[in-house]
Amino acid sequence: MSELAERAAKLDGCDPLQGRRDLFDLDDGVIYLDGNSLGALPRHVPARVADVLTRQWGRMRIRSWTEEGWWEAPERIGERIAPLIGAAPGHVVVGDSTSVNVFRAVVSALRMTPGRSEILFDATTFPTDGYIAASAARMTGATVRAVDPAEVAKSLTDDTAVVLLNHVDYRSGRLHDMGALTEAVHNAGARVVWDLSHSAGALPVDITGHNVDFAVGCTYKYLNGGPGAPAFFAVRPDLLPQLDQPLGGWCSHREPFAMDTEYVAAEGIAKARAGTPEIVSLLTLDAALDVWDGVDLHQLREKSLALTGFFEECVKELAPAARSVTPEIRGSQVSLSCVDAERVMGELVNRGVVGDHRPPDLLRFGFTPLYTRFADALRAAEILGEILA
Amino acid sequence: MSELAERAAKLDGCDPLQGRRDLFDLDDGVIYLDGNSLGALPRHVPARVADVLTRQWGRMRIRSWTEEGWWEAPERIGERIAPLIGAAPGHVVVGDSTSVNVFRAVVSALRMTPGRSEILFDATTFPTDGYIAASAARMTGATVRAVDPAEVAKSLTDDTAVVLLNHVDYRSGRLHDMGALTEAVHNAGARVVWDLSHSAGALPVDITGHNVDFAVGCTYKYLNGGPGAPAFFAVRPDLLPQLDQPLGGWCSHREPFAMDTEYVAAEGIAKARAGTPEIVSLLTLDAALDVWDGVDLHQLREKSLALTGFFEECVKELAPAARSVTPEIRGSQVSLSCVDAERVMGELVNRGVVGDHRPPDLLRFGFTPLYTRFADALRAAEILGEILA
Repeated sequence: MSELAERAAKLDGCDPLQGRRDLFDLDDGVIYLDGNSLGALPRHVPARVADVLTRQWGRMRIRSWTEEGWWEAPERIGERIAPLIGAAPGHVVVGDSTSVNVFRAVVSALRMTPGRSEILFDATTFPTDGYIAASAARMTGATVRAVDPAEVAKSLTDDTAVVLLNHVDYRSGRLHDMGALTEAVHNAGARVVWDLSHSAGALPVDITGHNVDFAVGCTYKYLNGGPGAPAFFAVRPDLLPQLDQPLGGWCSHREPFAMDTEYVAAEGIAKARAGTPEIVSLLTLDAALDVWDGVDLHQLREKSLALTGFFEECVKELAPAARSVTPEIRGSQVSLSCVDAERVMGELVNRGVVGDHRPPDLLRFGFTPLYTRFADALRAAEILGEILA
Repeated sequence: MSELAERAAKLDGCDPLQGRRDLFDLDDGVIYLDGNSLGALPRHVPARVADVLTRQWGRMRIRSWTEEGWWEAPERIGERIAPLIGAAPGHVVVGDSTSVNVFRAVVSALRMTPGRSEILFDATTFPTDGYIAASAARMTGATVRAVDPAEVAKSLTDDTAVVLLNHVDYRSGRLHDMGALTEAVHNAGARVVWDLSHSAGALPVDITGHNVDFAVGCTYKYLNGGPGAPAFFAVRPDLLPQLDQPLGGWCSHREPFAMDTEYVAAEGIAKARAGTPEIVSLLTLDAALDVWDGVDLHQLREKSLALTGFFEECVKELAPAARSVTPEIRGSQVSLSCVDAERVMGELVNRGVVGDHRPPDLLRFGFTPLYTRFADALRAAEILGEILA
């Protein structure tokens, strides 16, 4: 057994999260390192969704809106996500896509900063955030400017209304300093919106401790909520009373069943809802979140850093033609630069190592600490080495 | 056997759609007349969704986006809905809620009518449409005014930009004249947005024949797509090239996987998408739509009118204390006015007749022609008569 194999075995053997892997369907021998794009299926989810379909929809039908808690599901599931992102109870709601929630958050933030008209957005963020920021700007008469997170502090002006940032760079895996950036934005009198799509479930996030104004993020990556699972929206407690969002529909009304012609927003976080929630996707997510019950997020973080570091060591030794571009301060992924990256990823997938390719030259590997083993990291590097050799 | 019972038996016996009922799980003896709120479960849906979860998500994981057609599902399922609403192929997409799609349609329509600034909306529409119209107005500097559909023609002015109408009044069941109203709006130089939530699947709709600009609607009522199933958005073919919607995200980009920082809209109907679609809800709807394969919508309409008319006859004879407020020109529901309507509906539900109550005085009964029998209409009226006696 090689030295790396011995270390992998030892690290897996003393992994306090090792039991979690059994909660997922990963029996097919694939080394799945794409949980940062679509998290794996928790085994118990299909049976739970079958109950939603056959009993709740099929038999109880319309009564499930009240008797099975469908109506409150967006807030109730938000409450389950709150501790994973450090949100205050009662201040997270789930529904719509991340894109729609970015729109909701940016416009709401603009309305809290009257007299200011510039939106700064993370030039390295997943593109949808920039597209939506530009649309929000166009609709409100604001302007929009892309800045690298490292340049945010010096880019803030008296006219900056909102800064939209991604917690983790989806390409490089770089983790941004939520505390320092939020403080800089606040010192400039602006509001911040954090996109947590690549950090929720990947590491402990503390939006309350960092005084974050708004946070949004998807639930189908490290949270394993299922393909296209609905996104979350969180707001700082002291901002909730003045929250004035642009997509208030009947589900965010104070008295939805009064069917009033005049809109009066709900008092709680329900005011961030819009229309009827996609219940089947929502309750799929609800079931999937059970895998988080009792997880210590600091153990999660420790394992994540150990895993990604170990993978880099393995790559250095076994696949030296690929080079990590992921900084030390990171989320839970490693991105490798190599020549002919698209073809290389195709061969990796053919050989049972699933990551993804981001143009032009990146191989991206997500290390979901709940189910990825150190042995997987080693084996992925070995196969990569064989392909690159 | 009473005369009404004899007629019910005869009508059910020669119903060309009678076989469709077997496609639904309605074995529990309940008389389900709330399909206008939540359509019943088609029996084959749970097995299809189980495959989505266990095989597509569980085993193929990320590959399903391409190999199982997840990526194109919003357009592909839109194509299945197109014939049900008379849309041109390639001009319907499914995703997001009806509320979000109303926002998308109204703002897009405003952008097609520069120099005009008033939105008229149906004062009798389901409230979310009015809330969203008001929000769109506020964001664009437009004004908004509620008008009864009967007053639309005389309310149009040179400043009218958009008229948002509901095809069927959700309270009374009144069906509005799509052709005449659309023509009036066009003659005034404005754009029309029709909400088809209560007509799609209830009757043949012909948005192409009536030259409709935009149509939106939900899929969880007469289309039986499951609780909170995603909504559809349709645009007139000649307007698609200029469609400029406010929620363009990465999924409506021309080259989503180029991850470009600049937004360039897709060319086809995909340009009306936003973020990642809620795949589990979307594919639940996809499976559910199978019950429409081969349905003749004119037979559907004939049965629907016969059913609602027969129910009114039964009520007149057996429950004369309730009075139909549904006009002859109607969707596929009957609304009865009676004293103490909320309590009466509660008793109906307790006795296995499920409709719903709309304040203050309405009992609302949906007659889904695919699965409601004339015998159900009679039995519902009998039980109502017993309660009111």
